[in-house]
Amino acid sequence: MITFNVGPSKVYPELEIFLQNAYNEGILSMAHRGVAFGEMMKKTLALLSQKLNIPPNYTIVFASSATECWEIIPQSLTQERTYHIFNGAFGEKWWKYASNIHLKTEKIALDISEILNLEKVQTFLTFTERRGGKIQVLDEHELICLTHNETSNGSKIPNKTIEDVFNNYPKQLIAYDCTSSMAGVALPWNFGDVWYASVQKCFGLPAGLAIMVLSPRAIARMKERNDRKHYNSLLPMYENIQKYQTTHTPNVLGIYLLMRVLEKLPNIVETEQMVQTRAKAYYNAVIANKRLELLVSHQEMRSDTVIAIKTTPENLTEMKYITKKEGIEIGNGYDIWKENTFRIANFPALDVEEVEKMTRILQFF
Amino acid sequence: MITFNVGPSKVYPELEIFLQNAYNEGILSMAHRGVAFGEMMKKTLALLSQKLNIPPNYTIVFASSATECWEIIPQSLTQERTYHIFNGAFGEKWWKYASNIHLKTEKIALDISEILNLEKVQTFLTFTERRGGKIQVLDEHELICLTHNETSNGSKIPNKTIEDVFNNYPKQLIAYDCTSSMAGVALPWNFGDVWYASVQKCFGLPAGLAIMVLSPRAIARMKERNDRKHYNSLLPMYENIQKYQTTHTPNVLGIYLLMRVLEKLPNIVETEQMVQTRAKAYYNAVIANKRLELLVSHQEMRSDTVIAIKTTPENLTEMKYITKKEGIEIGNGYDIWKENTFRIANFPALDVEEVEKMTRILQFF
Repeated sequence: MITFNVGPSKVYPELEIFLQNAYNEGILSMAHRGVAFGEMMKKTLALLSQKLNIPPNYTIVFASSATECWEIIPQSLTQERTYHIFNGAFGEKWWKYASNIHLKTEKIALDISEILNLEKVQTFLTFTERRGGKIQVLDEHELICLTHNETSNGSKIPNKTIEDVFNNYPKQLIAYDCTSSMAGVALPWNFGDVWYASVQKCFGLPAGLAIMVLSPRAIARMKERNDRKHYNSLLPMYENIQKYQTTHTPNVLGIYLLMRVLEKLPNIVETEQMVQTRAKAYYNAVIANKRLELLVSHQEMRSDTVIAIKTTPENLTEMKYITKKEGIEIGNGYDIWKENTFRIANFPALDVEEVEKMTRILQFF
Repeated sequence: MITFNVGPSKVYPELEIFLQNAYNEGILSMAHRGVAFGEMMKKTLALLSQKLNIPPNYTIVFASSATECWEIIPQSLTQERTYHIFNGAFGEKWWKYASNIHLKTEKIALDISEILNLEKVQTFLTFTERRGGKIQVLDEHELICLTHNETSNGSKIPNKTIEDVFNNYPKQLIAYDCTSSMAGVALPWNFGDVWYASVQKCFGLPAGLAIMVLSPRAIARMKERNDRKHYNSLLPMYENIQKYQTTHTPNVLGIYLLMRVLEKLPNIVETEQMVQTRAKAYYNAVIANKRLELLVSHQEMRSDTVIAIKTTPENLTEMKYITKKEGIEIGNGYDIWKENTFRIANFPALDVEEVEKMTRILQFF
């Protein structure tokens, strides 16, 4: 079965060998306070920076899942609120986790048909500022939460918006949920402060590990907040990673597999080119097919890595039947889009033949 | 290299095949909300109950690490305090995590030379009761934290004490850190409410997964507390496991490997017999050797699964040299015992030849 599921998704075929190597090299028994682990961690961090073009002054730490990052960010980087702008289920869930931590957390839900641009962000933030009174809102010590790639509906935030928001809000931190885009497209690191993802999407790895990338401004804020209260407080995570260690026994095998996959990957610029070419082919096939429709109407809001396609419930049943017969598993629609959409992962681990097969199905459906 | 390190430690040799199977069976891409995952989870829970003799009315959930359990327990099961009795570094760390959550958390540190019996527990709890005034202390809504097996110094809590404490404190919950004993010895489940461990010790598995076993009383308390505030709140974990799911994408591979290892394991009664026979041989070898001494003086306090041995710093250097030459890695002493002790894992995954080799080294050192 070829899985086009949006995650956990297809892993790189080299994993078969890497797992054997892990067993033979004693990775499964590796002491997480030992020299060998430190060297592995150092190499993994260097490879992440090198292959994903992460600026050298940014810090990388590991968590268990992107869901855990939803908690870590408001907990360790903000004083009393975060600002959430989203158009889908995962952005909303992040807001929910954050609002458990800070009662004063603010949100706005956009429609899938809207373009997320600077104006929308400004309108929302001005509104909350007016509502809350000048003292409390748009605090310099707070943080704006955005979903770079919304896995539930296949929308993304255009790079132009990311740059505009950064330039217009130079005092607030800006965090991006890149669960299903990191390692698939080149992220504009310098225009954001916190970027996180889990490895079971574009990294082509098994689930159980998340990566969080932090700007020097985020690190400064973390130190100022000085939160050490929690199992997953960022400060002890940061202090440990300086010594190439973790706060507790991590998923050592997961880190090893990440290192091995990164070694063989090309630079993200090359991967992005491939991903975008494939995305274009998928989108063109859907646009040309009268039985199918794109869920995201505005071209600049369409994700490169998750393609969400709308159709009738009858057509959806037929599409599932056809793909299954071809040995392909597609992703179901999510939440309110369950009955009339499906999703296709455009993750780099899928190979040329698989992508061509899927594209043909969309063309000739 | 044969690792007698106390964790991450030797994995079962079948892991080599299980990892290949995982790749071939598509476990690395398995959707954690799908039917196949639910079936795997159901089977894993049934195997845990069956092989470890967990009472059928107890609930099993998964976390990322035993360290995470240190936080979950005070967070989701207590109102304003926990009571900690320990004699080593990991028991103390648990207290530290708990005291970050509840300011009123109470602790007593025993000496390694003391026997932990009911009297000691009573003295401590009576003391805190007197100090705090009758209203606030020994609240029926709180919890006693004990380290069943202290990995840092090779001590355990005798079963007699576990039974006595349960019978004398029927209203408080009692939680046991079994990080390095679960799946190595038979735990007296009915005499405790929360039992947790990570899989990289006696389960013979790679790190990145923890198991938490809860009594019906613990579940009732959890519902009464109704904590949903956190990423790792117990209530949503519990609700999800009723549907054989997890709150977020878990370490799917880790759960699969656990299932496969459990399938091939004998019942815990049989494993315990083997572990205790081996422990006896180790202890006898050390007692007979004038250059070595046991760190834990009282026989009933000596762990079955972690053997801590004291010697001079010079002898320690020699021991490390000899074991290394024999292809054996031993565990360093921990914390205040770093300079003059070493630790040997007596975990079930070690095979007869390895254990005999290690026993001979201790005999003829």
